[in-house]
Amino acid sequence: MNQVIETILNHRSVRSFRDQTLDREQIEAIVKSAQAASTSSFVQAYSIIGVTDQENKDRLSEIAGNQAYVAANGHFFVFCADLHRHKVLAEMENVDLNDSIESTEKFMVALIDAALAAQNAAIAAESMGLGICYIGGIRNDLEAVKEVLKTPEHVIPLFGMAVGYPDKETDLKPRLAMEHVYMENEYQQDQSLFEKQLQDYNETTSQYYRERTGGKREDTWTGQMAKMLGRKSRMYMKEFVEKQNLKKK
Amino acid sequence: MNQVIETILNHRSVRSFRDQTLDREQIEAIVKSAQAASTSSFVQAYSIIGVTDQENKDRLSEIAGNQAYVAANGHFFVFCADLHRHKVLAEMENVDLNDSIESTEKFMVALIDAALAAQNAAIAAESMGLGICYIGGIRNDLEAVKEVLKTPEHVIPLFGMAVGYPDKETDLKPRLAMEHVYMENEYQQDQSLFEKQLQDYNETTSQYYRERTGGKREDTWTGQMAKMLGRKSRMYMKEFVEKQNLKKK
Repeated sequence: MNQVIETILNHRSVRSFRDQTLDREQIEAIVKSAQAASTSSFVQAYSIIGVTDQENKDRLSEIAGNQAYVAANGHFFVFCADLHRHKVLAEMENVDLNDSIESTEKFMVALIDAALAAQNAAIAAESMGLGICYIGGIRNDLEAVKEVLKTPEHVIPLFGMAVGYPDKETDLKPRLAMEHVYMENEYQQDQSLFEKQLQDYNETTSQYYRERTGGKREDTWTGQMAKMLGRKSRMYMKEFVEKQNLKKK
Repeated sequence: MNQVIETILNHRSVRSFRDQTLDREQIEAIVKSAQAASTSSFVQAYSIIGVTDQENKDRLSEIAGNQAYVAANGHFFVFCADLHRHKVLAEMENVDLNDSIESTEKFMVALIDAALAAQNAAIAAESMGLGICYIGGIRNDLEAVKEVLKTPEHVIPLFGMAVGYPDKETDLKPRLAMEHVYMENEYQQDQSLFEKQLQDYNETTSQYYRERTGGKREDTWTGQMAKMLGRKSRMYMKEFVEKQNLKKK
């Protein structure tokens, strides 16, 4: 196994950071790594906002459900799907690109572009001995995030990323079995095998929690997911995204 | 610069591969790397389909606009946003998760999850000396892709990834200036500076094409984008995604 794959496989979310900010060189290495990712038809449909102002970090932390590590970290990035740039260039080139910019296809492109960039940033940070945590919690209230970051129309803040010097080691959570996630030639048609694989995974997750809590907790994955997905959350998203003039067509 | 960041910054899309298939160990390293990426609330809302059947690869190549490297490579992966698994677990747990599964929020989660996983796969492959190319072209006709891969409802094939031993070296295309993509504390409000940055980038891209084509081509980025986005493409996407019972709410 090479050093790159080792870094990738060693990933775990870090939720507690030492009180030390990233320096300019680290931030630049992270952002340039993000930018090196592939981008659909060279569209580069994302922006990254680094939040250093403590009041704004506190506000984002509050929005994310009072996650302390959103406020206390070495640096906080927000990754945004961004087609504002393309709206501006439409004016510069004197063409009407609205149908394209407002399409579901381009919304998907922007999300994928932003996520590819973010994962490069994450790996780059981890390769420098830093820890990271993705913060989907900012999607609790994107109207409020939009106000903090002053993002224009055609921009959706997707998630934050807290980066910093790890304070506490965290565990690696066992993933779904590779055979369940990776299929060959066609999607798995055998429903009973599919369910059997989920049951096997339930065993794995139960054991993980049992060992970690001295038997106090015994969650299954399907149980966790049923509970999490059962709480309807962020149902305002459709309206919010369309209000930014994206995903309408 | 460490080896990981070096690998990341050295990325370029490879569109011509030697006639040599990946072995099991390589495929496993790539998929396990993909699975090590962060996933929103542990939802793991993606699947990866490896396409080895040559007839199916030829069919996907045709769908992607006759891109030869979709048919001829060391291995072809398709990354899918996948909430089918969560539909199945809803039945196992005897709960109704439809509102959640059909929400715009969870559609976004699945796209982001799949893209984070894919970028880990890309970096892992490149770290082993392999080349990769993302294939968004499969989105030209997802009904046809769905037929080839037999994906059920709640699954959207997002993009392919051709992987293999590079046959030809390709150039690194210059990205948008870091100052344009990375902002601090708030989105850039100064519109004239924003446009100035795009004009500067146009200079960069013009020079890139001039040097590469011996002066024959002189595209600007905003010109390229205006042309590309001016061709409305994949406008069926909204309907297709909603037909898979995703992004409806």
